[in-house]
Amino acid sequence: MYDIAIIGGGPAGLSAGVYAARGGAKCCILEEVAYGGQVNQIDHIDNYLGMNGESGMELAEKFSEHAKQHGVEFIRRKVKSVELDGDVKVIHTSRIDVQAKNIIIATGAKPRKSGLEAEERFAGNGVSYCATCDGAFYKDKTVAIIGGGDTALSDALYLSRIANKIYLIHRRDEFRGAKSLQDKIRDCDNIECLMNAKLEDIYGENSVAGIVVNGEKISVDGVFMAIGTQPNNELFVNKVELDKNGYIITDSKMKTSVSGVYAVGDIRNTPLRQVITAVADGAVAAFDALENI
Amino acid sequence: MYDIAIIGGGPAGLSAGVYAARGGAKCCILEEVAYGGQVNQIDHIDNYLGMNGESGMELAEKFSEHAKQHGVEFIRRKVKSVELDGDVKVIHTSRIDVQAKNIIIATGAKPRKSGLEAEERFAGNGVSYCATCDGAFYKDKTVAIIGGGDTALSDALYLSRIANKIYLIHRRDEFRGAKSLQDKIRDCDNIECLMNAKLEDIYGENSVAGIVVNGEKISVDGVFMAIGTQPNNELFVNKVELDKNGYIITDSKMKTSVSGVYAVGDIRNTPLRQVITAVADGAVAAFDALENI
Repeated sequence: MYDIAIIGGGPAGLSAGVYAARGGAKCCILEEVAYGGQVNQIDHIDNYLGMNGESGMELAEKFSEHAKQHGVEFIRRKVKSVELDGDVKVIHTSRIDVQAKNIIIATGAKPRKSGLEAEERFAGNGVSYCATCDGAFYKDKTVAIIGGGDTALSDALYLSRIANKIYLIHRRDEFRGAKSLQDKIRDCDNIECLMNAKLEDIYGENSVAGIVVNGEKISVDGVFMAIGTQPNNELFVNKVELDKNGYIITDSKMKTSVSGVYAVGDIRNTPLRQVITAVADGAVAAFDALENI
Repeated sequence: MYDIAIIGGGPAGLSAGVYAARGGAKCCILEEVAYGGQVNQIDHIDNYLGMNGESGMELAEKFSEHAKQHGVEFIRRKVKSVELDGDVKVIHTSRIDVQAKNIIIATGAKPRKSGLEAEERFAGNGVSYCATCDGAFYKDKTVAIIGGGDTALSDALYLSRIANKIYLIHRRDEFRGAKSLQDKIRDCDNIECLMNAKLEDIYGENSVAGIVVNGEKISVDGVFMAIGTQPNNELFVNKVELDKNGYIITDSKMKTSVSGVYAVGDIRNTPLRQVITAVADGAVAAFDALENI
């Protein structure tokens, strides 16, 4: 029996682990893919106070090490289902069941899809969701980035150092991303911004040959989707209260609608989805959960 | 005219500065004493994810540099008064007036006093509020620490490496501070814990000679007060809404009761007062204020 079990090993989950372990709780983090979560896919981070310019992978490594050094138990298993009612919560994984007095949900969010059939067809074969992961495949080639937020802008800058030509395609007349990033984009002569531009199709034979934007064909070798995220809430539908976009509703202490169950980071209805806010959420939830161990 | 003016240069204010500047805002931080704020007084920090074991002073330096590198303007002035109503806010300092569209209040909190007359009399002369600052004066001497939270416990550990004998004096029957710290205290043979113990007086001629606890005299050379904090709210009374303890009331976007005025970090009614939560608050407030520049 754990005092606190954390589902998801991104920044929010790891920070919750540090606070839980430091507070004397027997604590584990269940993670299926990569500790550090989406941080692994950030090129360089410059807005986590005290860390200016570190690579996402370096930061993810530091985050994981920090939790390990405090004695948090890492369980690398896919969670199949959860039982959240009652005083003892149960997490069912592919092999073992984990019992805990408190659960902290930190499953984060994943890239939003455009809804185009072609996006699914070319996923992993010309359509990518992670510039840092797949950018290297497009050396001296032409790529399109779809989106207008921080992620789209920083992906464009990242790819401008690898690809020959970058189309940055945004459906609105101005970007949502940070002005500092917009300034850098403007100084980059291999990035062409197409505003008020709608991605209508992706075409090609075995791999991507081009896209259709506002009725016109543009030849590209790859498409990077950066149109936002959606919550990884599959395990929790009808178990805790969600908002209309599917994010878990919490109070200021990160409590969900179910006693002993917390939600932190990108999965919750937070006003800002950033590494630093996720990390703070984890601290707040663990601190509160320590009252009930 | 600034887009965003931040009052207070601790972690919350510096993080707000990074997010504001990164978002393209003309931004300044007013700070009277030390950038980094209370972080300067932390011995070692082990719960800011990714920074495990750094000294408070190192971290304060990194924080300040980070904000400077993003182009935040540092104004080293004492704020005398503020005008928060209207679209243009005004901050009056000893020399200049600063005008801004948005104000972020990040003035933090200060040590709570015991209320004993003797505490005031010996302050700076045997009574201290910062073990990291003043500990070195007590090499091989006997000291008392008053309190039972994280600060009291980590102060005791810090002083155990300097002083000969430490009394840790707490009015309750158990500590509030992290269990990991409690374990270390137990392993430390020069720390003696006095529980259910009330500090009744501090005595001495020109400097501290001892304390009175539950009617009994104990000889000590110094007293470290670690009984909590109170908000630095003097400038804001009757200007923004405060809770019953004097902390500024905010919503989840850090908005106060006055339009264009935010509060972040230890000064607000937050569920947890930590470096990491203060830093996240700053990001959230600046992100929201960027909508109004």
